[in-house]
Amino acid sequence: MNGFACKNPAWVQANDFSFSGLHNPGNTGNPFGSAITPVTVAQIPGLNTLGISMVRIDYAPWGIVAPHYHPRATEIITVIEGSLEVGFVTSNPDNRLISKTLQKGDVFVFPVGLLHFQRNVGHMNAVTISALSSQNPGVSTIANVIFGSKPDISTNILAKAFQVDKNIVQQIQRKF
Amino acid sequence: MNGFACKNPAWVQANDFSFSGLHNPGNTGNPFGSAITPVTVAQIPGLNTLGISMVRIDYAPWGIVAPHYHPRATEIITVIEGSLEVGFVTSNPDNRLISKTLQKGDVFVFPVGLLHFQRNVGHMNAVTISALSSQNPGVSTIANVIFGSKPDISTNILAKAFQVDKNIVQQIQRKF
Amino acid sequence: MNGFACKNPAWVQANDFSFSGLHNPGNTGNPFGSAITPVTVAQIPGLNTLGISMVRIDYAPWGIVAPHYHPRATEIITVIEGSLEVGFVTSNPDNRLISKTLQKGDVFVFPVGLLHFQRNVGHMNAVTISALSSQNPGVSTIANVIFGSKPDISTNILAKAFQVDKNIVQQIQRKF
Amino acid sequence: MNGFACKNPAWVQANDFSFSGLHNPGNTGNPFGSAITPVTVAQIPGLNTLGISMVRIDYAPWGIVAPHYHPRATEIITVIEGSLEVGFVTSNPDNRLISKTLQKGDVFVFPVGLLHFQRNVGHMNAVTISALSSQNPGVSTIANVIFGSKPDISTNILAKAFQVDKNIVQQIQRKF
Amino acid sequence: MNGFACKNPAWVQANDFSFSGLHNPGNTGNPFGSAITPVTVAQIPGLNTLGISMVRIDYAPWGIVAPHYHPRATEIITVIEGSLEVGFVTSNPDNRLISKTLQKGDVFVFPVGLLHFQRNVGHMNAVTISALSSQNPGVSTIANVIFGSKPDISTNILAKAFQVDKNIVQQIQRKF
Amino acid sequence: MNGFACKNPAWVQANDFSFSGLHNPGNTGNPFGSAITPVTVAQIPGLNTLGISMVRIDYAPWGIVAPHYHPRATEIITVIEGSLEVGFVTSNPDNRLISKTLQKGDVFVFPVGLLHFQRNVGHMNAVTISALSSQNPGVSTIANVIFGSKPDISTNILAKAFQVDKNIVQQIQRKF
Repeated sequence: MNGFACKNPAWVQANDFSFSGLHNPGNTGNPFGSAITPVTVAQIPGLNTLGISMVRIDYAPWGIVAPHYHPRATEIITVIEGSLEVGFVTSNPDNRLISKTLQKGDVFVFPVGLLHFQRNVGHMNAVTISALSSQNPGVSTIANVIFGSKPDISTNILAKAFQVDKNIVQQIQRKF
Repeated sequence: MNGFACKNPAWVQANDFSFSGLHNPGNTGNPFGSAITPVTVAQIPGLNTLGISMVRIDYAPWGIVAPHYHPRATEIITVIEGSLEVGFVTSNPDNRLISKTLQKGDVFVFPVGLLHFQRNVGHMNAVTISALSSQNPGVSTIANVIFGSKPDISTNILAKAFQVDKNIVQQIQRKF
Repeated sequence: MNGFACKNPAWVQANDFSFSGLHNPGNTGNPFGSAITPVTVAQIPGLNTLGISMVRIDYAPWGIVAPHYHPRATEIITVIEGSLEVGFVTSNPDNRLISKTLQKGDVFVFPVGLLHFQRNVGHMNAVTISALSSQNPGVSTIANVIFGSKPDISTNILAKAFQVDKNIVQQIQRKF
Repeated sequence: MNGFACKNPAWVQANDFSFSGLHNPGNTGNPFGSAITPVTVAQIPGLNTLGISMVRIDYAPWGIVAPHYHPRATEIITVIEGSLEVGFVTSNPDNRLISKTLQKGDVFVFPVGLLHFQRNVGHMNAVTISALSSQNPGVSTIANVIFGSKPDISTNILAKAFQVDKNIVQQIQRKF
Repeated sequence: MNGFACKNPAWVQANDFSFSGLHNPGNTGNPFGSAITPVTVAQIPGLNTLGISMVRIDYAPWGIVAPHYHPRATEIITVIEGSLEVGFVTSNPDNRLISKTLQKGDVFVFPVGLLHFQRNVGHMNAVTISALSSQNPGVSTIANVIFGSKPDISTNILAKAFQVDKNIVQQIQRKF
Repeated sequence: MNGFACKNPAWVQANDFSFSGLHNPGNTGNPFGSAITPVTVAQIPGLNTLGISMVRIDYAPWGIVAPHYHPRATEIITVIEGSLEVGFVTSNPDNRLISKTLQKGDVFVFPVGLLHFQRNVGHMNAVTISALSSQNPGVSTIANVIFGSKPDISTNILAKAFQVDKNIVQQIQRKF
C-alpha cells in the first residue's frame, strides 16, 4: 500500500527497478513520423504504487504526436534534440490553445487530462524525454478513439458532433 | 482541507448547500439537440473539497451529447425519461467501444478520463441525471477542443492526425 | 489502481458498467415508510476504484429516512417527485442543524460523515436520486447502531449518554 | 500543499510544532464523568496538512465517553491508567458491536467514521492517549447531534426514527 | 479499499483491532540506550488501509533515538515520563534544526520525511508515546542506512559525501 | 484544487508552463563534482497541484550526488551521457542496498523516501534527467542535515549515533 520497497524486502532486486535502451531512437517510419518508447509499470514492475513513469519520443523532421491526452497523468516534457511546436487546449467553455515553440533544453507541462500535441518544426530529427505523474498514465489518441474504435462509433453521432457529411466521417473511419 | 462544514461553522447556511431548478427542461434548440444543466461548485459553494457534483441533460428526439471526456471525474448516469445509446472508448492500444442502449431506469458508468457520448434513440425527449466524482470535473468536448480552440490548432497537424486533406480540416474548423 | 478500464481491457464488457431498474418504486411498506435502492460497487463491479455510486429513495407520504451518516462519502441529492424536509447537523461543538424544505428539482448536499435525514412533507409519494462520493460509501443509521447493534451496547452506557432511565433504553432496544 | 516545513522555512520555529500540558488530568466533574484534551491543528499550527492529531481523555470511576464518531479520522487508543470497556459498531446492515475490555497498556482501533464509545470499568480514574488520522478529525457525539442540535430536529422525525413516543423524545431533548 | 470494517464484516473480531503490552518498558540495554515497541499493521491487522499506527519508546538516562526519518509518515510524540531533547532538520537548502527540550506532558511534531532524533536529558528513564500517520510508516535510521547497509555503500562515495578520510569511513562501517 | 488550468483560465499563458535551459551543463566545480538544475514549482508556477517535476544533473568524471532522499517523491532517472553507479537502501530492519551500474539509456527508480546516491564511474562527464512525483519534492542530503544543520545537532547525539569519537564528529561538522 505505502511504497513497494517495504512489501517484499527480501525478494526485491535491482532489475525490478531498471530498464535499458532509452537512448535508442525509435522507428519513425509510420504515418505520423513519430515513435514512442514508454517506461511504465509494464516495463518496470517496481514502479507499482509509486506514481511516476517516463517516455522517450522520436520525431522525423515532418513528424507529429497527434492530439491526445492522458486520463490519469500530468506530463512534463523536455527537448533533448531539435525544435518542436507543442500545445494543450483548456477544457470547456474556453478551449484556449496554450502553445509554444520549444528549443533544445526547454521544458513544458501538459496538465492532467488536457488534450495536447507535439510537432517537429525543425529540419532534423527531434527527441524528447517526458515524465508522467502515474505509473500507468494511459493515453487516448483522439483520432484513434473517435474514428478507430472497435467497433466504430456510429457515423450518425460523429457527423453531428463534427458537423460534417457522413461521407467524410466514413472516409476518415476507413483510414483507422 | 478536511470537509467544508468545519471551516466556518458559524457562517454556513442552508443556501450554501442547495440549488433549485434541476426539474426544468433545458433548451435543446441547438445544433446538438441537447442541453446541459450543471450543479458543480460554481452553483453550490458548499461542494468545495467534497468531491462530487451533479448534472441534468435534456435530449431532443434527434439529440446527442457529442463525444467528450472529463479530465478529473468518473460519471454515473441514469435515464429518467426516454431511451439512449451510450458508450465509452478505452484508451490505447485497444480503443474498444463499450456501449449499450439504455432504457428508463438504467444506470451506466463512464470511467474517469475516458471518451464517451450519449444519443437519443427514442422518438421523444429524453432526460438523464448524472453525478461526477469531483466538485469541478471539467469537460473537454472533442470537436471543440480539436477544431474550435482559440487560436486554432494548425491545419497541418490536424490533417496529419486525422489523415485527411487540409481542405476538410479547414471546412470543419469554420463550423466551430 | 488507476482506473478499472485499464486493468483487464480484453475482458471488460458493457454489463460490467450497467444496472437496470432504478425507475422502479421501492416498497415503502415498513416502519419508516421509505425504500432505498442502492447502485454501488456491489451492483456494478466496474465502479471499483472509481469513487462514485448512486441511490434511489422512495418515500410514502408519511415516510422518513431516519437520521444516518455515510462513513466514507459526501451525498448530493435531487428531488424527482414530491416535497421533502432535509437537514444535516454539524459536528461538535456547534451541532448546528442546517435544514431546508426541498421541492421538485431542488438539489442539496450532505457533507462527508455528517448526520442527516429526509422526511416527506407533501401529501403524495416522493422520489429522490442521490449520488455518493465513494463506490462503497457505507451507511450507519443511528437508531440501529445505537439501539440495535448485535450484541447490544450496555444499557448503562446508553442511559448515561442520553441521560434517560435505563427502562426507556431497554424499551427502545426491544424495538430494534 | 506537500508538507508544512517547506512552506515558510525561514519563519518556522519550534513553538509552531509543540504543545504543553498533556500530562494534566482534565476535569471530569460533568454528567459524563470524562474530560477530553485535544491536540489538533487548533492547538499546533504546524500540524496543518500533516494528517495526524492526538488527544488525552480522563475518566472518573463511573465515567464514559458517550457514543460518537469522527467524520474524518481513524482513532488508535492506548490505556495509560485503569481499565476500560470500549467498542465500535459496524455500519448497516450488520451493525455488529466489536468490543473489548482493555487494561493498562492495551491498544485498540476505531476505524474511520464508525460509532464508538469508552467506559471506565475499574474502581479508579482512568487515562487514555489516542491519535487520530487527521489534523482536524471532527467529532459528532450522537446524543448531541440527535437531541441537542440547534435548532432541534423535529420531534416527529425522531419519534419515528427511534420508534418511541414524542413525549420521550421531548423529554430527552430538554436535557441537551 | 474504503475502510477495513466493511471488507469482511462477518469475520472481523475484536482481536483484529487490538494489541496488549504497551505499558511494558522495553529493554534499553543496547548501544543507543533506547527501546522501540511498535504497534503497526504488523501487530494489528485491522489497521490495514486506516492510515495510523502507534509506538512506545523507552530511554535509559543516557539513551538516544539516533537520527532517523519515516519515509511515509508524520510523527506526533508526547512525553509520558522524563525530559527529552528532540529536534528535526528541514530539507535543503536551509537545513534548519528545529529543536526543543520537552517535559512530561509536552507534545511535538516531526513532519513527514524530515530527519529527527530524541535524547534523554533527565537523570531517570524516560517514556514517550508517538503516533504516525501511516499503518506502515517505515523507518530509516541514518547511521544504519549509510554505514550498515548490506552490501556496503562504497567507501569512495561515503568519503566524498562526508568529506572524511576513507579510513574513518571504514572504521565506522565496521561498527554497523 | 483539481488541476491548475481550470483555476484562472483567462489569465494563464504559455510561460506559466515552461522553462528554458535544461540543455546547459551545470558547474561541477565543487567538492562533490556534480551540479543540479531543478525544474519544480519554483521554476514553473503552472506545476502547482500537478504532482510532478524534473531535474538535470551533471557529473564530473569523479563526481557524486551524495546520499540523500526526497521526503515527498519517488524519482525516476535516465542516463543521457556517461556511466553511473546508482543505488538506494531499503528502510529498517533490512537496510538492503539495491544498486546497479547504469549506461547511457538506462532507467532506474528510487522509491519515495528511500536514501539513494549516484556516482560517475566513467572517464568523462555524465548527464542524467530525472523526474519526481511531486511539484515540490524536497531533498534532504544526509551529510548536510546531519553534520551541517543550523544550529548543529549536539556532538553527543551524533557520536552515539555513529559510534565514533566526538573529535571525529566535530571534525566532520567543521567541513559543513
